[in-house]
Amino acid sequence: MASRLRLRIVHDQGVIGPGKVALLKAIRDTGSISGAARSMDMAFRRAWFLIETMNKMFHEPLVRTSVGGREGGGAELTPLGVEVVERYYALEEATRAAAAPHLEWLDGKLAQAAPEDTP
Amino acid sequence: MASRLRLRIVHDQGVIGPGKVALLKAIRDTGSISGAARSMDMAFRRAWFLIETMNKMFHEPLVRTSVGGREGGGAELTPLGVEVVERYYALEEATRAAAAPHLEWLDGKLAQAAPEDTP
Repeated sequence: MASRLRLRIVHDQGVIGPGKVALLKAIRDTGSISGAARSMDMAFRRAWFLIETMNKMFHEPLVRTSVGGREGGGAELTPLGVEVVERYYALEEATRAAAAPHLEWLDGKLAQAAPEDTP
Repeated sequence: MASRLRLRIVHDQGVIGPGKVALLKAIRDTGSISGAARSMDMAFRRAWFLIETMNKMFHEPLVRTSVGGREGGGAELTPLGVEVVERYYALEEATRAAAAPHLEWLDGKLAQAAPEDTP
């Protein structure tokens, strides 16, 4: 299998990586924290904790919850939340494109796992 | 502080990140595994383990040790080892350049730690 890049954005306030961004995306898609957590096979409490962490990392919150309380109500991304998701994927795409020729060279030098169906 | 990128190259055979590459660089600079480990404040056994892991990841070894045995002898990078170090830093530089405008945007939105000397 080809090698691939794993990215994290590290900041004084915390780390942003693919997991947190996927959770934002799932909230955008499902309209609730519980739905997002379920779609990612993540405990609700963990999803809640990650969102609180992210909301505190930024000047403004990324996720807004609506009446109905922690379990009942809906959740949506704020305009900043939407933009953070888009920016993260733009960053990911730009870095992957920049890394591609180097990873290709590396793949030519890395040992391959033995094919499973070798006779 | 500005946010920054943390990179790992993930492959079936293992992971290559800044720690392993810094170890290769230290071997190139010090000429021995023990010297490299010392310069990085790393246990010799851990350095040895990481080098064995890397040597197995590639078609050819990245580090060659000379007579004198595990503790006594010298160590040097093979031509492939030299090239892997250079490629890794080229990849890092290319991806950082590609990520820069996105990180800059993000820095404008991330909360800052309160300055310690606020009156």
